[in-house]
Amino acid sequence: MSPVAVLKDQKARACLTSGQNPAKIPLGQYFFQRLVSCGARSVFGVPGDFNLSLLEHMYAPEVVDQGLNWIGTCNELNAAYAADGYSRYSNTIGCVVTTFGVGELSALNGIAGAFAENVKVLHVVGVTPSLFHQNPTHASQNVHHLVPAMSCSNFEPPNHRVYYDMVNARVSCSSAFLDNIDTACDQIDNVITEIYRRSQPGYIFIPADFPDMLVSCENLNNRPLISLQEVISNIPTDDADTTRCTDLILEQLYKSKKPAVIADMLCDRYGLNSSLRNFVEKAQLWNFSSAMGRSILNEASPNFKGCYNGLESNEQAISDIQQCDLILHWGAVKNEMNTGHYSYQFGSNTQLVELHPNYIRFVNGKQSGKHLMFNGTYFGEILDRVSAGLDITKLNFEYPETQSPSMERYNPDPRSPITQLYLQQTFPDIMKPGDVLIVETGSFQFGVRDYVFPSNLKYISQSFYLSIGMALPCALGVGIGMQDYPLDHIYTEQVGNLEACPPRLILCEGDGAAQMTIQELTSFLRYKVPLELFVWNNKGYTVERAIKGPTRPYNDIMMWKWTKLLEVLGDFEEKQTFSRRFETIENLSEFFELFQSPHNKLIRLVEVVLDVMDFPEQLKVMAAACQH
Amino acid sequence: MSPVAVLKDQKARACLTSGQNPAKIPLGQYFFQRLVSCGARSVFGVPGDFNLSLLEHMYAPEVVDQGLNWIGTCNELNAAYAADGYSRYSNTIGCVVTTFGVGELSALNGIAGAFAENVKVLHVVGVTPSLFHQNPTHASQNVHHLVPAMSCSNFEPPNHRVYYDMVNARVSCSSAFLDNIDTACDQIDNVITEIYRRSQPGYIFIPADFPDMLVSCENLNNRPLISLQEVISNIPTDDADTTRCTDLILEQLYKSKKPAVIADMLCDRYGLNSSLRNFVEKAQLWNFSSAMGRSILNEASPNFKGCYNGLESNEQAISDIQQCDLILHWGAVKNEMNTGHYSYQFGSNTQLVELHPNYIRFVNGKQSGKHLMFNGTYFGEILDRVSAGLDITKLNFEYPETQSPSMERYNPDPRSPITQLYLQQTFPDIMKPGDVLIVETGSFQFGVRDYVFPSNLKYISQSFYLSIGMALPCALGVGIGMQDYPLDHIYTEQVGNLEACPPRLILCEGDGAAQMTIQELTSFLRYKVPLELFVWNNKGYTVERAIKGPTRPYNDIMMWKWTKLLEVLGDFEEKQTFSRRFETIENLSEFFELFQSPHNKLIRLVEVVLDVMDFPEQLKVMAAACQH
Repeated sequence: MSPVAVLKDQKARACLTSGQNPAKIPLGQYFFQRLVSCGARSVFGVPGDFNLSLLEHMYAPEVVDQGLNWIGTCNELNAAYAADGYSRYSNTIGCVVTTFGVGELSALNGIAGAFAENVKVLHVVGVTPSLFHQNPTHASQNVHHLVPAMSCSNFEPPNHRVYYDMVNARVSCSSAFLDNIDTACDQIDNVITEIYRRSQPGYIFIPADFPDMLVSCENLNNRPLISLQEVISNIPTDDADTTRCTDLILEQLYKSKKPAVIADMLCDRYGLNSSLRNFVEKAQLWNFSSAMGRSILNEASPNFKGCYNGLESNEQAISDIQQCDLILHWGAVKNEMNTGHYSYQFGSNTQLVELHPNYIRFVNGKQSGKHLMFNGTYFGEILDRVSAGLDITKLNFEYPETQSPSMERYNPDPRSPITQLYLQQTFPDIMKPGDVLIVETGSFQFGVRDYVFPSNLKYISQSFYLSIGMALPCALGVGIGMQDYPLDHIYTEQVGNLEACPPRLILCEGDGAAQMTIQELTSFLRYKVPLELFVWNNKGYTVERAIKGPTRPYNDIMMWKWTKLLEVLGDFEEKQTFSRRFETIENLSEFFELFQSPHNKLIRLVEVVLDVMDFPEQLKVMAAACQH
Repeated sequence: MSPVAVLKDQKARACLTSGQNPAKIPLGQYFFQRLVSCGARSVFGVPGDFNLSLLEHMYAPEVVDQGLNWIGTCNELNAAYAADGYSRYSNTIGCVVTTFGVGELSALNGIAGAFAENVKVLHVVGVTPSLFHQNPTHASQNVHHLVPAMSCSNFEPPNHRVYYDMVNARVSCSSAFLDNIDTACDQIDNVITEIYRRSQPGYIFIPADFPDMLVSCENLNNRPLISLQEVISNIPTDDADTTRCTDLILEQLYKSKKPAVIADMLCDRYGLNSSLRNFVEKAQLWNFSSAMGRSILNEASPNFKGCYNGLESNEQAISDIQQCDLILHWGAVKNEMNTGHYSYQFGSNTQLVELHPNYIRFVNGKQSGKHLMFNGTYFGEILDRVSAGLDITKLNFEYPETQSPSMERYNPDPRSPITQLYLQQTFPDIMKPGDVLIVETGSFQFGVRDYVFPSNLKYISQSFYLSIGMALPCALGVGIGMQDYPLDHIYTEQVGNLEACPPRLILCEGDGAAQMTIQELTSFLRYKVPLELFVWNNKGYTVERAIKGPTRPYNDIMMWKWTKLLEVLGDFEEKQTFSRRFETIENLSEFFELFQSPHNKLIRLVEVVLDVMDFPEQLKVMAAACQH
């Protein structure tokens, strides 16, 4: 268990044991106390008539004492994105509360994205009171927010669980429609447990009359916290398999001349980042990240060899990984975006080990597809055992000298327009250790593949599901997470420095994507979340233009006066914010030089004008793959 | 068939026959030509990699010649709302195009609302190319925008139809996932036919490689248009039943002393407004609207007795309807909001006739629940026959003299703050015949129940599904509809006057609701849609405050500088728009007095400051019903 995880569990436990739980409390209060006991310090959402009775219980003294914050967003999709960001940052539950139908369906795309990228989002939906599920007269009523029966809706009753049916087992790993107050607490706890176990979203549907009903505190007393560590520690594993896997990996490591680790997304989701960093450091292993595993490892280390994304990687990374005779692919996630369109290719003699929460798989290149599969193991436990058992004196690595890929420096005329190439060469320099960088789906995102991040920078981007508009509300959730769990993403040694000069939240948005969810910028002002926002103004959907219709109106958007936006959204006197538009390299580079300097603004919004058809080289492969 | 409907069919037919259709055209072109032939002159949506190949075919000369417009919105939910508005206004297909997963799920809440309120929305989704549905290797790939399998997603293939499975037969009356190019045209035509037949949304999922494939034009040649009238005319009816129903209704009318018509929503959706107006005029019948049937009839007529919403109506309407011995409830929709929480109550001797597209039902109060039911009839045909067959010399109505309910005039101090009561008394006066009034779900909406609308005013409000944020993008769709079909909502006699002084699009928004979808205001500037926008600034969610948590932060929102919004959203020089904030009755009433005067602004945005807890009396019943 990492020190941060221990700290989180201690915090949660301290909150819970600070008051004596009486025998019976309202279910609403139970829910919020339970939520705090799962690590959530903030809840996102929008009020609606079917969830108000639940929301009221946030103000029970026992909940207030524990410091749970309500973060009201402008709409429900934004709430779901924010909850996703909160969980990506804190690795605890990101909770979103919506109301029946109108709210929950608006949030659905955000939940699907969390499902696709293994984010621990809990979606709580206030639904019709239990009367409507029990009493036939009420059950037959077409209630507002509910779609009527498809045929004969004047006679056929509606399906009060229609929205549950849509999401259950499709975008939710566990869904509970509460229909019995006696088992409601168990159902809630079960959904939360499953969310941690599977790192996927779950749903709880709460009838509007349930929050006021009394339930026993037994669960809270018997199981005072449900955390990732607590849930993981209860996963049954097969000791013989675990030993065999550990031994096999150590044996391969001792035999290997050029082993490598690929750090993939599930390491992050299961809280292994710190352990994996320690392991690669101890063994001095070459290491890579997958496209979705950025910033799990220390990318500033000389042993970090870049982002490996199959044949869509940069040439140096492809060449480096093909020399390796052993690949430990830790936290493996196989999808189109994370594998360069399924183009992972290793040397023909390479031993590949895939490590996943549910299995460990050994694939030997020579034996054409033959593999060993272990299902009774847990990849975190293997990591701990391999790391602890490793005898570095037995290692015989023979890594070649390599040079870090140096891009030819581009020296543009300072008065010339800003280009993606210029950004790619200068943007990495303005980040500092400990920053949190959030990048929207879009053309700029593709260039980030080849950035070398400073140590302890946390990178967040929805790089598989790719829903544009996600990043801005996501950043709100991340910023709230940074308030609730300061420095949670920092790996020990540097905490001292960072407390004096706190990490910055940097968000890079395309203009088209920003317009999708722009109203949520107001919430950074409302909840005092510091933000450095870059808006790439390239007059529309440049990713789409790269694929098709470069000059078509369907790829155009309206031009906005971005620099006046924060004034409208709440900074009436323009005292808390700074907004500026840059069109030339000269002006932007002056800003970049001063970017590190302290300033007294809550939000800085920087509009950067780019050419309509300027996009990074790295987007071309993706654009070619999209030519249907 | 109404004159307007005839006109629409003629237009569509003229478009189609203007060019010779060659033997084979690309499916994408087929789709857009078919769409035009269904009455859609505009398409709403957001481009995405899986729909670009479809969108390209909008630029085929044959489609361009027919005048199809692309209306790009800021996000997909807004596109769905706009398509809904377009259909509510034009009564043709409102088409929304989105991309796989990220786009379609964002739009889903808008589609559910259209389903709940019988709006003819066609949702076209660009999905993975057909290879991914046919070739096992491709089918097993986790493609971006697609959620992976719930378990073992590294091994189990994803379900490429997972989003289809969510919506099919739940919020869609007909859904086609195209998988065979040979039947694709039939599938498209079938979905569109069903949308008109059932007045509910349908879905077409188009693989990204299909739009470029060639298909036969046969369907376009054989069935040159698919319109509401064309589809309806093909509904098989039972002539004996139709005759019997007609005779029974005429018989009841001749017998009745005090008959009444309640005009309900389905009359509007099936294009009966004009015929129903003529019928009540010919027979000089007392008439009411249902809550969802506002502005179907001429509310300026002395025979219009108000909005009947069961026991939630105003006292005069309840008393008037209880005197009636025959109720023709035309286009009956039974749901909580449309029946005053199922509180319709008529006199004990009253004969009730419910007329619905799928059935006619006679219920006699005296015979405690006994009824006659006819399923082989169509309510539009019955209307035509009853109206034509009516011999007014046989009518023996004995209506009492009634007074129109006169509210006590409230004479506030001009310097006092603006109140909902003041608005309720003055707002109806600023509307003029032919205006289109769109009212957002919220506190203000409840007061509109008792407005008396001028003749030919069209009222649009999502009064059952009640999704806040819907009205603003809906208004965009309505405005585009008003461009495509000018004066479509006007009933003959006054067309002349209105062409000189065109109808205005008036939108009333609450501040909390407006923040949900505010970015779409930019599209009114982009597409030159004139708008009169009122923003009721009451500092948050007043409907929710009326139910619970009047002072809770969850009902608060950020304060915005509304009057600078249009400048940010594209009117950089503030030349096309006018924005003003009003806090006192004096200032607002001055504006109201000049409201009718011509002006040269595209958009006027009026922010009206109201007290946080000020809401119309009519909301109280709803708020009480929501106390769970």
